[in-house]
Amino acid sequence: MPFTHDLRVRYGECDAQGIVFNANFLAYVDIVLTEIWRESMGSYDLLLETGVDTVVAEANMRFLAPGRFDDILRIEGGFDGLGTTSTTLKLWFRRDDDLLVEADVRYVFVDLENWEKSPIPDAVRKGLEPFLLR
Amino acid sequence: MPFTHDLRVRYGECDAQGIVFNANFLAYVDIVLTEIWRESMGSYDLLLETGVDTVVAEANMRFLAPGRFDDILRIEGGFDGLGTTSTTLKLWFRRDDDLLVEADVRYVFVDLENWEKSPIPDAVRKGLEPFLLR
Amino acid sequence: MPFTHDLRVRYGECDAQGIVFNANFLAYVDIVLTEIWRESMGSYDLLLETGVDTVVAEANMRFLAPGRFDDILRIEGGFDGLGTTSTTLKLWFRRDDDLLVEADVRYVFVDLENWEKSPIPDAVRKGLEPFLLR
Amino acid sequence: MPFTHDLRVRYGECDAQGIVFNANFLAYVDIVLTEIWRESMGSYDLLLETGVDTVVAEANMRFLAPGRFDDILRIEGGFDGLGTTSTTLKLWFRRDDDLLVEADVRYVFVDLENWEKSPIPDAVRKGLEPFLLR
Repeated sequence: MPFTHDLRVRYGECDAQGIVFNANFLAYVDIVLTEIWRESMGSYDLLLETGVDTVVAEANMRFLAPGRFDDILRIEGGFDGLGTTSTTLKLWFRRDDDLLVEADVRYVFVDLENWEKSPIPDAVRKGLEPFLLR
Repeated sequence: MPFTHDLRVRYGECDAQGIVFNANFLAYVDIVLTEIWRESMGSYDLLLETGVDTVVAEANMRFLAPGRFDDILRIEGGFDGLGTTSTTLKLWFRRDDDLLVEADVRYVFVDLENWEKSPIPDAVRKGLEPFLLR
Repeated sequence: MPFTHDLRVRYGECDAQGIVFNANFLAYVDIVLTEIWRESMGSYDLLLETGVDTVVAEANMRFLAPGRFDDILRIEGGFDGLGTTSTTLKLWFRRDDDLLVEADVRYVFVDLENWEKSPIPDAVRKGLEPFLLR
Repeated sequence: MPFTHDLRVRYGECDAQGIVFNANFLAYVDIVLTEIWRESMGSYDLLLETGVDTVVAEANMRFLAPGRFDDILRIEGGFDGLGTTSTTLKLWFRRDDDLLVEADVRYVFVDLENWEKSPIPDAVRKGLEPFLLR
């Protein structure tokens, strides 16, 4: 897998069922994306300096088993190709050998000036190259 | 639409882009589900008294336009049929005439004793009948 | 009490103890403040048009009894005088006759241009007058 | 300082002002407490095995400067003595040399059986000894 990030489940992220509240897995995806910008571009701020940002266009998540308080989640994945203006991040959330959640999140690049769809800048394309799934 | 719920966007639900943080739309789905249990079963607690609860198995969301602080979101939708042990809630989030988000969330019913997949109890099936899309 | 707002506890706001996660009471204070701006100034945006915003300088909270999922919390309170550049909002969170939480939150007014401490504009002072505790 | 923990600010923890939403500092206190249980008792679960849990009775926070996205916050502190049934955790949140937030949070120990106030068990008292401020 081109990218791996470990993350510990916080108490306040669990709900009254004692398991990770489902919406928090989508928040975890965002944390992972920040880490990918750090590794690929230096930081999220350096992404913004290329003149673009990303917005979430689609999120498809499959919940196979619950996460629990204090679990260390291993999140692995990468991008499923780079389109002209968008890309899909595929992530697998595991606790030891158990697969808990699969997420496919499609991001669209937008121009920071007018918030319109933008081609992926060459510098970003180059930075993301090592994070492509093959 | 069999179900409608209005919800106002809170300041803390918006992120540094000034728009609703995407994960919060999945949290909104959960708020809507609570309201559906209230209308269909009397309350979520009365659902639990039938011996079952639900867990999210899948969530598919399309983000078409951003929500903003203090927006009143109109959330409409219903269930796309009732399977043996699961059902899919389809929701459309609108601000006035603009469609912001579409969400399809599949819930699996589980037995409160052992947390295993359970058939939908008859009382629940009857309660959800008016909330089916047709 | 000069101000009252009712708020229903959401499922995702409760933690694994089955009670409202303590940090969410501070988030509730912010929701209440938004409603006070709506009643006093027309909206939070109209506050901003006077050239100032507020930042939290201090928050003192006493937790007397837990809030629970689906509780309707009645939040009452008002401002404890208006200083030159700051004011303290005092709130009491009740469920029926039970007092759950007391909060004193001191806000400092800041100039939107430079984010420095600012005198409270006359229009804001006038808007807040009916929300003073006496 | 008897205890130090570093924590990176997440994007979703910032609000539309572009700074850490104030309620999240109270959530950070809870994360720190979990880490203190890990160092002092082995884990929060091992605290529970002594028959007690803690609830927040009071939280007093002073906000001196804003936290920002991707900041690494250094959180230092310890307990201000151990009472019969309660203790106060004092924390200082810093980014480099800047003090951002001071928090004093009083916890009451409760018996897991009946949720009533409980003396601090000897094993817990011993575990917390190295985390006392002097």
